[in-house]
Amino acid sequence: MADLADLGESELINRLRRFAKRGQFNDDAALLSPDQHLLRVVSTDALVEGVHFSSSTTPGFSVGWRSGSANLSDLAAMGCLEAEGVTVALAAPGHTSIDWLEEVYEGLADLLQRHGCELLGGDCTRAPVVMLAITAIGKVAADAVIRRESGQAGDRLVVSGAHGLSNLGLRLLQNPRDISLQQLGEPLRKAAIKAHQFPVPRFDAVAALHRSRPEAAPWRVAGTDSSDGLRRSLELLGNACGHQPLLDEPFALTEGCCLNSCLDGGEDFELVLALEASWAEKFVAQLPGAQCIGWLGENPGPPCWANNKKPLPIGKGYEHFAKL
Amino acid sequence: MADLADLGESELINRLRRFAKRGQFNDDAALLSPDQHLLRVVSTDALVEGVHFSSSTTPGFSVGWRSGSANLSDLAAMGCLEAEGVTVALAAPGHTSIDWLEEVYEGLADLLQRHGCELLGGDCTRAPVVMLAITAIGKVAADAVIRRESGQAGDRLVVSGAHGLSNLGLRLLQNPRDISLQQLGEPLRKAAIKAHQFPVPRFDAVAALHRSRPEAAPWRVAGTDSSDGLRRSLELLGNACGHQPLLDEPFALTEGCCLNSCLDGGEDFELVLALEASWAEKFVAQLPGAQCIGWLGENPGPPCWANNKKPLPIGKGYEHFAKL
Repeated sequence: MADLADLGESELINRLRRFAKRGQFNDDAALLSPDQHLLRVVSTDALVEGVHFSSSTTPGFSVGWRSGSANLSDLAAMGCLEAEGVTVALAAPGHTSIDWLEEVYEGLADLLQRHGCELLGGDCTRAPVVMLAITAIGKVAADAVIRRESGQAGDRLVVSGAHGLSNLGLRLLQNPRDISLQQLGEPLRKAAIKAHQFPVPRFDAVAALHRSRPEAAPWRVAGTDSSDGLRRSLELLGNACGHQPLLDEPFALTEGCCLNSCLDGGEDFELVLALEASWAEKFVAQLPGAQCIGWLGENPGPPCWANNKKPLPIGKGYEHFAKL
Repeated sequence: MADLADLGESELINRLRRFAKRGQFNDDAALLSPDQHLLRVVSTDALVEGVHFSSSTTPGFSVGWRSGSANLSDLAAMGCLEAEGVTVALAAPGHTSIDWLEEVYEGLADLLQRHGCELLGGDCTRAPVVMLAITAIGKVAADAVIRRESGQAGDRLVVSGAHGLSNLGLRLLQNPRDISLQQLGEPLRKAAIKAHQFPVPRFDAVAALHRSRPEAAPWRVAGTDSSDGLRRSLELLGNACGHQPLLDEPFALTEGCCLNSCLDGGEDFELVLALEASWAEKFVAQLPGAQCIGWLGENPGPPCWANNKKPLPIGKGYEHFAKL
């Protein structure tokens, strides 16, 4: 099986050309057409072998798909309805299998194609482990941007879908012989694994926001995505707008997902939004899986339960630099 | 001395805020204003510890500066007159010194400030070694783009400055006791170390291209930058336009730089251009350090000497994925 050192950089880039438009890799950088009315949105995310995936156990196709999703999800969280293009910085050891690497780009290309997005270019270099740093570029109308700071007291907190499913999928993949997990129905197990391996950037939720916007209501949408967990996204939203997230208890939890994996499982890539009440109601009615989970209080503060103001159960949030 | 694991991701990002505009890191992605006439240019480059720098011997300030320069140089090679912004994906082990990391961002910020460029955002994550993947965004008028494929037979090959100096600087840093190197004059030694640690993206050469353009001449400029070595940039240019680069012999070599380090030393970040003869002449007269090094032949082919059509001396080009 060919590895990267056998192939060399030039030939690797030649093989990767087929994932981009003809001639796209022929220059030092990529060109984007001007657009008179739309703001460009830029987001960067990095995935590292051994931290975000395992090159031995995670199929390359899923690694490519997830790397792209993490970025495209950030564009959706800014109000983009689709993505325009991505650049990819690939770092990998010389012994990396070319087949696996091509699967990574196939997975990424498959995701991009579903969202009208192109591979613009990138860089390839050697490193002790595989790292993929992706930068995504999108467009958004200046009067339809989602900002974290836009939340106001009384806004409903809305999520575009369930949390914890991706984490359940990860547990199923890591513990194939765990009997308690195998007792879950097959449709749920399949859905959870799919949620983990092929998370979907919620551009459809942004479209639903536009459709459900009450007539004459100004565009005011606060939001972020839940890539680092629901708890973290509520903290980010609450801190940015200065209003405490107050959560209904109990949540409508997905079967097989405990509150802990719902709050801190991470990688669900749902949108977590703060919307004026009538907009929130119409939005939830329009988008299957969406639900209201609470509202924003008058004052600043960390996310807590609405009924008793008690803090959420302490969980282990994801810490990128933890000593292992 | 504090390390990254002590600090954690949130606090790291808080410390990095001062390198960007107020509020720049408050959302999931960065916003760029629309521009009616200009194409956006996007370039991505990755630097990896142990491959492109050593975190123990390369000052953080220089690592940040060089990472940014590699990208901004790509924008100049597309015809940009300045850069607009960059995103940074930082991957680093938990034991990384915070002081060193802040130096990296200080070096990057210093470079960006000199070129009207802003830190737009990015991502931070854990990895076994330090990696910086930077994406730079610039603007260029549609009728002033530099493409590799634009070269024509008879075009002069022009470089914006000397090659091999950065490699000499690296050798000086790696071999401080090498007597033959110490015999070089101090001004040259200082210039070489500066060229290695603080390479300059040649936006000034693009400005000189505009100034030296002959009246009524259409904009037709072929070019690339010499980040992977002069030989490699000549290959890229020649292959893209289908004309063989024919080089004058001998080159005007910089003192202390042999032909090998000139051709394959790399990291000089000069522009290597193919220009119509009268434009080339005016360009070289306008830009100190620029020189004509040959021309493009009628037919395709690898770079060779013009007088005898012999291939350039075989050197060791930089291979990113070589087994060490």
